Amino acid sequence: MTSRIGILGAGGRMGRAIIEAVRASDGVTIGGAAERPGHPCLGESLGGTMTICGNPSAVAHNSDVLVDFTTPDALKSNLDAALGAKCALVIGTTGLTGAHLETIDQASRDIAVLQTANTSLGVNMLAALVMKAAAALDTDWDIEVVEMHHRHKVDAPSGTALLLAEAAAKGRGSPLASLAERGRDGPDSQRRTGAIGMASLRGGSVAGDHDVIFAAEGERMVLSHKAESRETFARGAVRAARWLTGKPAGLYTMKDVLGL
Amino acid sequence: MTSRIGILGAGGRMGRAIIEAVRASDGVTIGGAAERPGHPCLGESLGGTMTICGNPSAVAHNSDVLVDFTTPDALKSNLDAALGAKCALVIGTTGLTGAHLETIDQASRDIAVLQTANTSLGVNMLAALVMKAAAALDTDWDIEVVEMHHRHKVDAPSGTALLLAEAAAKGRGSPLASLAERGRDGPDSQRRTGAIGMASLRGGSVAGDHDVIFAAEGERMVLSHKAESRETFARGAVRAARWLTGKPAGLYTMKDVLGL
Amino acid sequence: MTSRIGILGAGGRMGRAIIEAVRASDGVTIGGAAERPGHPCLGESLGGTMTICGNPSAVAHNSDVLVDFTTPDALKSNLDAALGAKCALVIGTTGLTGAHLETIDQASRDIAVLQTANTSLGVNMLAALVMKAAAALDTDWDIEVVEMHHRHKVDAPSGTALLLAEAAAKGRGSPLASLAERGRDGPDSQRRTGAIGMASLRGGSVAGDHDVIFAAEGERMVLSHKAESRETFARGAVRAARWLTGKPAGLYTMKDVLGL
Amino acid sequence: MTSRIGILGAGGRMGRAIIEAVRASDGVTIGGAAERPGHPCLGESLGGTMTICGNPSAVAHNSDVLVDFTTPDALKSNLDAALGAKCALVIGTTGLTGAHLETIDQASRDIAVLQTANTSLGVNMLAALVMKAAAALDTDWDIEVVEMHHRHKVDAPSGTALLLAEAAAKGRGSPLASLAERGRDGPDSQRRTGAIGMASLRGGSVAGDHDVIFAAEGERMVLSHKAESRETFARGAVRAARWLTGKPAGLYTMKDVLGL
Repeated sequence: MTSRIGILGAGGRMGRAIIEAVRASDGVTIGGAAERPGHPCLGESLGGTMTICGNPSAVAHNSDVLVDFTTPDALKSNLDAALGAKCALVIGTTGLTGAHLETIDQASRDIAVLQTANTSLGVNMLAALVMKAAAALDTDWDIEVVEMHHRHKVDAPSGTALLLAEAAAKGRGSPLASLAERGRDGPDSQRRTGAIGMASLRGGSVAGDHDVIFAAEGERMVLSHKAESRETFARGAVRAARWLTGKPAGLYTMKDVLGL
Repeated sequence: MTSRIGILGAGGRMGRAIIEAVRASDGVTIGGAAERPGHPCLGESLGGTMTICGNPSAVAHNSDVLVDFTTPDALKSNLDAALGAKCALVIGTTGLTGAHLETIDQASRDIAVLQTANTSLGVNMLAALVMKAAAALDTDWDIEVVEMHHRHKVDAPSGTALLLAEAAAKGRGSPLASLAERGRDGPDSQRRTGAIGMASLRGGSVAGDHDVIFAAEGERMVLSHKAESRETFARGAVRAARWLTGKPAGLYTMKDVLGL
Repeated sequence: MTSRIGILGAGGRMGRAIIEAVRASDGVTIGGAAERPGHPCLGESLGGTMTICGNPSAVAHNSDVLVDFTTPDALKSNLDAALGAKCALVIGTTGLTGAHLETIDQASRDIAVLQTANTSLGVNMLAALVMKAAAALDTDWDIEVVEMHHRHKVDAPSGTALLLAEAAAKGRGSPLASLAERGRDGPDSQRRTGAIGMASLRGGSVAGDHDVIFAAEGERMVLSHKAESRETFARGAVRAARWLTGKPAGLYTMKDVLGL
Repeated sequence: MTSRIGILGAGGRMGRAIIEAVRASDGVTIGGAAERPGHPCLGESLGGTMTICGNPSAVAHNSDVLVDFTTPDALKSNLDAALGAKCALVIGTTGLTGAHLETIDQASRDIAVLQTANTSLGVNMLAALVMKAAAALDTDWDIEVVEMHHRHKVDAPSGTALLLAEAAAKGRGSPLASLAERGRDGPDSQRRTGAIGMASLRGGSVAGDHDVIFAAEGERMVLSHKAESRETFARGAVRAARWLTGKPAGLYTMKDVLGL
C-alpha cells in the first residue's frame, strides 16, 4: 500500500527536504503541498498538474497523512484540516507551548497524531538510552548536555538538547525546570548536586551535534548523536508518516515508530 | 553492617588500588590479603597486626567476601578457598577460558559469585545500553568499536572492547566471532553488512577510552566511556563486593549490582 | 577579474559537486567541462549552448584553469591539454604514483600546477599544525591517526589519513614507511617507541573524520578535522583554482593557497 | 647539574603534587618548602631534617629556582624572597591582575621569571597551534572554546580556556574582551561574525578537557587537550623549573621551555 503524504510548510527548508525524501523513498507518494498565503512558492509545480497551494484542507483530502513543519501559529488550522479529512498528522513544528500540546491531545481522540521535536531515529533512540541511564545512575553522576549547531541558529539551547535533558530529568524523576543549569559563566558558578547543565556552541554549518555526559568520580559515560544534514530529519519524518498511515486515533511518539 | 573484604592478588597494581579503595570507603574493612608464594610483598604490613600472607584460605575465613584480581592459573585454589569458608567471591581476573567459566558456574551453586571483565559501573551501564541499541536498530546502522589504552598494553582489542562488542552482537542475535572485523587495513577493506568493526589505539597513559559507534545514512549515535585511572575499577570492585555480601548462592553480574 | 574554470571528470561525483560550487561562487565561471569518451553524461547541457564534451583540450582553450578529478590513467592527456593551452591546472586525482608526480613536476616548468590529496582548507591547515607539533614534541608523545569514512570506502587508511601521517613523520624527520603501525590486532601488539599508529573506521555516510592524537604521560593533544559533505572538497578545489589563476609557472600546494 | 627546587604553597594540592614530581624526576632535588603562617602542614617532614617552613626567603636561599602555586596575595613576598636570594622563579598562581603582572615584569629585570596559567606542555603547544590557525583562517571560520572540569570548580570559564581564547584572539588581531561570547543562552542568541564563543561543563573529577573548534561552511577543525590528573601540571612545573635554572634575568614563558 502506498501512503499519500501531504506536506505543510512546503516552501521552507524542511518542507523542501521532505519533498525530496518522499520522492527518494519507496511506498510513499506526494498527496499535495501547502504554504501560507503570500509565500513566493505558491503555484510552484511539483510535477504533473500538482502545485504548491495555500489550502491545507485540500491537501488533507488528497492525503493519508500530513507532515507539518510550519510555525506554532499555523497549528490550529493544520489540525482542523487533518480533522476535517480524517487524515493522520505528523507534527515537527518546534516552539510549541502547553496550550498547543493540549489542542494536539484533543485532536488525537479523533485522528492519529505524532508530535516530536526531532524526527531522527538516532536522537529518539538516544533519548530512550539517556532516560534509562539517568534512572539507573544516582546523583553521584553529574549530567551535562552540550550541543553544537550552525552559526545561523538563534535560540539556545536547541529543541533537541531540551528533549534530551527532559529525558534525563524524567529518568531522575524531577521536572527539568528544577534541575537545569544554563549559560554557566562567571566566578561563582558552583555546580548544584543533581543539576543538569546545558551549554550551546554555534558555528559553521553544523546540522546538529548533541552530547549527554554522565560524569562520576573517575569515569565518564557520554551518549552522543551527530546529524550530517537536514535530510536526516526529512527521512525520519517520512518514515514516521508512513508508519502512522492507517493507525487508529491516538497520540503517538517516535518511540512507537522505533518500537522502543 | 560492615563487610570484611579479603584481597587476593594484593601485591599487584589492581590489588593495591583495591586496598586503598577499601580504606577510603564506608561500610567495608580489610578482612585479609594474600599473594602467591614467593611474591616480594609477602609479610608486608597492612596496619595493626595484619600482613599480606600466602594463604587465600586463611583470608577467606576472616572475610565476608573475597576480591580476586590474580591470574587464570590461580582461579581454582581461590574458588576452593571461598568454598571452604562459605565466603562470597568477586572475580575480576581476565583471560578466563570456557573451562574456567564452567568451574565458576559450579562453585556458584554453593556460594555467591560475581564475575566480570570490567568492574566500572559506567562500562557495565554502557554495555546494557549498547545491547539495547543494537537490538532496536537494524543493520542499516553499522557498528564500530574503537578503544584507546596506554602505550604498555600489549593485547588488542582490550577485554572491555570485546565485552562491549559482545553486548552489541548479543543485541543483534549473532555470535561476535561471526560479525567482528578486526585490524582493518589495505586496499580491499570492503565493510560487510552487519559487521562489527574493532580498532585499537595505543599511547601515553590512557586508562581506558571506549567508543561504540552506530552509523547510519546521515546520522551517527556514539556511546562512550572514559576511565580516568585504575582507581575507578578498584572502587567498582569494592562496591560489587559490598553488594555481594550476604547474598544467597548464585552467579551474579555487575548488572545486578547496578539494578539494570 | 573572473576566472574561467574548466572541469575534467565532469560526470563524476566530485565533478558534479565542482560544477555546483563554481555556480555558487563569486569571481568564477564555467569555462567548459569534459568527460572520458563513452561516458553517459557526454552532451549533457551546462546551460546556454555549453555541453559536457569529450575533449579536454577544447575545454582548456576556453579556460584560465582546469580542475582535474579523474583517474591516474587520464593524467597525461589532461596535462597535455593544459600545456597546449598554457592553462593552469589543479589536480585532485588520488592514487598517483611516483612516475605521475614526476610528469607533473615537468609540466610545472611551463604552467602553474597545484596537486593535492585533499582540497579542503581545514585538512591542509591541520596537516601544517600536525607537522609543527610532531617536530616540537619528542617521542614521549605517541602519535596515532584514526579516521572514519562511509561504509562504501574500500581502501584503508584513507588518502587523507596518509597525508596527515606523512606530515607527522616529516615533523619527526623519518619516512612514514619506517614509523607506521597499521591494523593493530592480536595478543602481541606491543607499540614501538616513536611509531605512528593508524586505524580506520567505516560506517554510514560519514564524509570524512580524522583525528591525530599526541599522547604523553598524563595528557593528550588531539588535532581533528570533520568534513560534512563532498561539497567541502568541491569548494576547496574552486578556491584553489581561483587562487592559481594567473600565477607564474611552478608547482604549488594547498599551503600556498592558505598562505601558511 | 642537579637543580634545587623550592616549593611555595607546599601544603596545597598542587604543592604536594610538585613535591611528588620532584622526587620522581631526574636532575632535580627539593631545596625546601614553605607554606603561609598558620597552615596545619607547617613542620611536616620532607625527609631527613627538612620540614615545611613558613619562610619563603629561607627556602629561596637554599634553592636554584622557586615554584610558586599560592595566591595572588602572596605574590609580592614570594617575589621579594626570590629577588633577595637571586633565585629564579616559576609562577603558576592564577587569578593575577594587571598590577601583579607589572610587579612580575619589574622583578624579571633582576632574576629569571616564568609566569603561566598552565604548566602542561600540551596546553602550551595547543595555544601556539590555536594562534597560528586563528591567524591563517579568516572569519568564515567561527571559533568556539569549550572546557570541562570537575564538579568542584567554581569559576567559569577556566583559566586555561581563557588562555586558549586569548591565543585565538591574538591570532585574529583583536582583544579577547571585544570578541568573547560567554554563557550563550536564550531565544535571541544570534552569533556575531568573528566572535569567540566560550562554554563550560562541570562534572565528576575531570582534571581538565579543552576543545577549540574552528567551524566553517561544511567543515570543522578541532584542536583539543585532555589532562588526566593534577600530576600532569606538576610534571610540567618541574620541567619548567629545571629549564629556568641558570637562565639570565628576563621574563620567560612555557613557549620558551617548549622551544616553540
